[in-house]
Amino acid sequence: MRENTLFQPLTPEILSDLKKAVGADKVLADGSNRLRRYGHDQVADDPDSRAPDAVVFAGSTADVVKVMEIANRAHVAVTPRGGGSGLSGGAVPIYGGIVLSTEKMDAIIEVDTENLIAVVEPGVVTSSLDQVLEPHGLFFAGYPMSEEFCTVGGNVAENAGGGRAVKYGVTGRYIVGLEVVTPAGHVMQLGGKRLKDVTGYDLVSLIVGSEGTLAIVTKVFVRLMPRPVHRSALLAFFPDTTTAISTLPRIVSTHRIIPSSAEYADAFCLREACLMVRETLPYETAGAMMLFESDGPDAAIVDREIGTIESVCAASGALHTYRADTEKTAARFWKIRKQIPWALKHHAKLNALEDIVVPVASIPSMVRDIARIAEEHSIRIPCFGHAADGNLHATVLAGDDSEQSFREKLPPVLEQLYTAAAGYGGTISGEHGIGHKRVKYLPIVMSQSQIEIFRGIKAVFDPNGILNPGKIVVAAEHGDYNRAV
Amino acid sequence: MRENTLFQPLTPEILSDLKKAVGADKVLADGSNRLRRYGHDQVADDPDSRAPDAVVFAGSTADVVKVMEIANRAHVAVTPRGGGSGLSGGAVPIYGGIVLSTEKMDAIIEVDTENLIAVVEPGVVTSSLDQVLEPHGLFFAGYPMSEEFCTVGGNVAENAGGGRAVKYGVTGRYIVGLEVVTPAGHVMQLGGKRLKDVTGYDLVSLIVGSEGTLAIVTKVFVRLMPRPVHRSALLAFFPDTTTAISTLPRIVSTHRIIPSSAEYADAFCLREACLMVRETLPYETAGAMMLFESDGPDAAIVDREIGTIESVCAASGALHTYRADTEKTAARFWKIRKQIPWALKHHAKLNALEDIVVPVASIPSMVRDIARIAEEHSIRIPCFGHAADGNLHATVLAGDDSEQSFREKLPPVLEQLYTAAAGYGGTISGEHGIGHKRVKYLPIVMSQSQIEIFRGIKAVFDPNGILNPGKIVVAAEHGDYNRAV
Repeated sequence: MRENTLFQPLTPEILSDLKKAVGADKVLADGSNRLRRYGHDQVADDPDSRAPDAVVFAGSTADVVKVMEIANRAHVAVTPRGGGSGLSGGAVPIYGGIVLSTEKMDAIIEVDTENLIAVVEPGVVTSSLDQVLEPHGLFFAGYPMSEEFCTVGGNVAENAGGGRAVKYGVTGRYIVGLEVVTPAGHVMQLGGKRLKDVTGYDLVSLIVGSEGTLAIVTKVFVRLMPRPVHRSALLAFFPDTTTAISTLPRIVSTHRIIPSSAEYADAFCLREACLMVRETLPYETAGAMMLFESDGPDAAIVDREIGTIESVCAASGALHTYRADTEKTAARFWKIRKQIPWALKHHAKLNALEDIVVPVASIPSMVRDIARIAEEHSIRIPCFGHAADGNLHATVLAGDDSEQSFREKLPPVLEQLYTAAAGYGGTISGEHGIGHKRVKYLPIVMSQSQIEIFRGIKAVFDPNGILNPGKIVVAAEHGDYNRAV
Repeated sequence: MRENTLFQPLTPEILSDLKKAVGADKVLADGSNRLRRYGHDQVADDPDSRAPDAVVFAGSTADVVKVMEIANRAHVAVTPRGGGSGLSGGAVPIYGGIVLSTEKMDAIIEVDTENLIAVVEPGVVTSSLDQVLEPHGLFFAGYPMSEEFCTVGGNVAENAGGGRAVKYGVTGRYIVGLEVVTPAGHVMQLGGKRLKDVTGYDLVSLIVGSEGTLAIVTKVFVRLMPRPVHRSALLAFFPDTTTAISTLPRIVSTHRIIPSSAEYADAFCLREACLMVRETLPYETAGAMMLFESDGPDAAIVDREIGTIESVCAASGALHTYRADTEKTAARFWKIRKQIPWALKHHAKLNALEDIVVPVASIPSMVRDIARIAEEHSIRIPCFGHAADGNLHATVLAGDDSEQSFREKLPPVLEQLYTAAAGYGGTISGEHGIGHKRVKYLPIVMSQSQIEIFRGIKAVFDPNGILNPGKIVVAAEHGDYNRAV
């Protein structure tokens, strides 16, 4: 929790204005447990989490405009929030004030099958959109691991990646238009039902991934793709990370196959997840796991691709490979993969789920560096993630450390981790974002002049600095913790 | 040519500083014909074209830094330039000053086959990069129609589209990193050899398509794809635009095929191009043409896709369809398509090659609107382009009009054209950019608050407004021709 000397408190007068503007039933400000739920996201034991003074459940763009007009005039902090599934504290109201929830704005406004574009409100749960698209033979190619509870607005805010990004790219590739409300309460229409657009600076891409710090997304135009009706999965156990990762360039360059998924886990992650889901496969001897998936419109091709991937795995020294011939078996494999973060959380309530990215070919070296850092600090840092993107969820576990000892250990561990990733030309977050969790580490991967440009852009959209303050970048007058680690 | 009261002239002292900084052999300032070549791009008879006072042929990032430091200190306008193949006057030095050519920075620094990323200087000609990648079985999926003379830096500046964007997307999808020099002369490294990155605002996407108004690109990290070794083309003649375009949703939604190309031309474009290349196919009776291409790693699948597309064309009422079974025949079909802009230029030296975008399903209505506008103004506006992207190169031809009469007619014609596109949720440029040609028309497709955000972003990067002035957006103090048409 931060000292709040930067923003005006939410006075009874402002609260009353809010209730008058949007309707009292949309405003929660009773200090209840329900209010506290809006004080954190999925970051484990975030020391900066705190309940907001009020949550406004916006029902429409007009509601968002009214809230922003009131808050901007009164200099009250506003933190936008989707499904609360974030992993970097992006939706945490660290300065209190208002949490603006878009979860009630959950209409799928249109599925335009002629132009292959869906228009949705930001509160639509990602998997709900998928269910609506399925009968049309279409899909939204974003596939965050939290699809059952994250929202499309949150996906846009974080530029969510996930399990299919290697083939389909991240969320931003499919966002062709946005309606946004600026901190001053202006509605802007950016892009729309058009597939190409070079009419000035690309504000759609600027808003995507900006973590709700520049504007509030109130409508999303999603480009749809033909749904791949066939899918096949392959689980492979390897003696170590090097052999596991060595499969990737062979699959892509030599065999010209871009799998729809290529997920990695080290021995610890594999074992903990398998124990938790009571998996009976012989995972104990494996030093690393890869989960591949291929998809497409043609069963024969999908099978052939998975067959080729299986051969590459065998030739690269896989201990065992298992093909999923049924949806049920594929689901069993994905269950292992999806269980990993929960298994790690179960193992250590206190943990830091990280999100570094390195060039794919540097994964084995990076994994060795992680082991070295862990040993140096007598701490465990298991690792899993989206291998073909070079995106590793190294997860620092508290183990036997006390809360205080872990909190003291963590910053130097993260600094070494991030510095190692930067050394390979990588960065500190691939899909979870900076939020407030990684703000102070930005200088490890970018120059002061780049951070100043971030600050400048923030000030262009939000001169009063009221929208999601303390995330990504900290306005100069709000302190200088972007300046030094 | 604009009055220049905004910038300092290039004095003999500044010229001497430039020569000292980068070497006299890299500076051209002799008022020669060669200098005049740097005063225009491919826009036909641009009334604002003018020779720069000097061209600097930068040989390295260090050269670019030195030029920007000198120009920024002295308030001299700098217009960056790639291959000069632009179609919106983006590289035209409308205020004189320095043209900073990157054409000598043409090194392919690295083809990293493990990480599938090429690192190149901005002056590399797009097709040269392709030739270097071919032996590796890789390719850069951008495919601007001017690939033989446009440069990668120019592709980045304009976010170039082209003939394969329907399947592969535009240039920006493949740009994972940039080295840029800011107007003040700071070198910034944005992104790099990493496939995912949410470390703050997406400056890579902001620079892509910014037409050299925010920073000068000095290095490009291009994501490479497995090269599709098989390719097949289909040329189809239709009675009219409606039947031609009606094939697209059937191909994509019903048959789940995303062709690598789906090019459209109306009867006039088809006839003029066929006449020029002495094509003998029976094009005279056709009201519209479609050129489809399918590509991929497997010949059988490519053939099957083109077969399906052929059936859809027949079922939609195609008059004739022709399959290219050889590369030679495919090249013959593409020759017709690529000849169109030259045939139109040949038909009318005075012309305006436009670049509107509409939702794909609105193409037939848009084409009818174009015919109506043409009739109303007694002017010819033939139309061709990238149909599956909704990107139409409507081209206003002077015909019998005198230069003066054409210049008077053009603004209301363009205003109507752009307004019609905007009415369908489209925009005024899909891939050619705003340059200085379309600056005054921006308010047709965007609100004043969005233009103010553009101005704010421009000022963050370029407080003195010296970098490519007059393009995309005009700083408030430089006049208000963004304000009204």
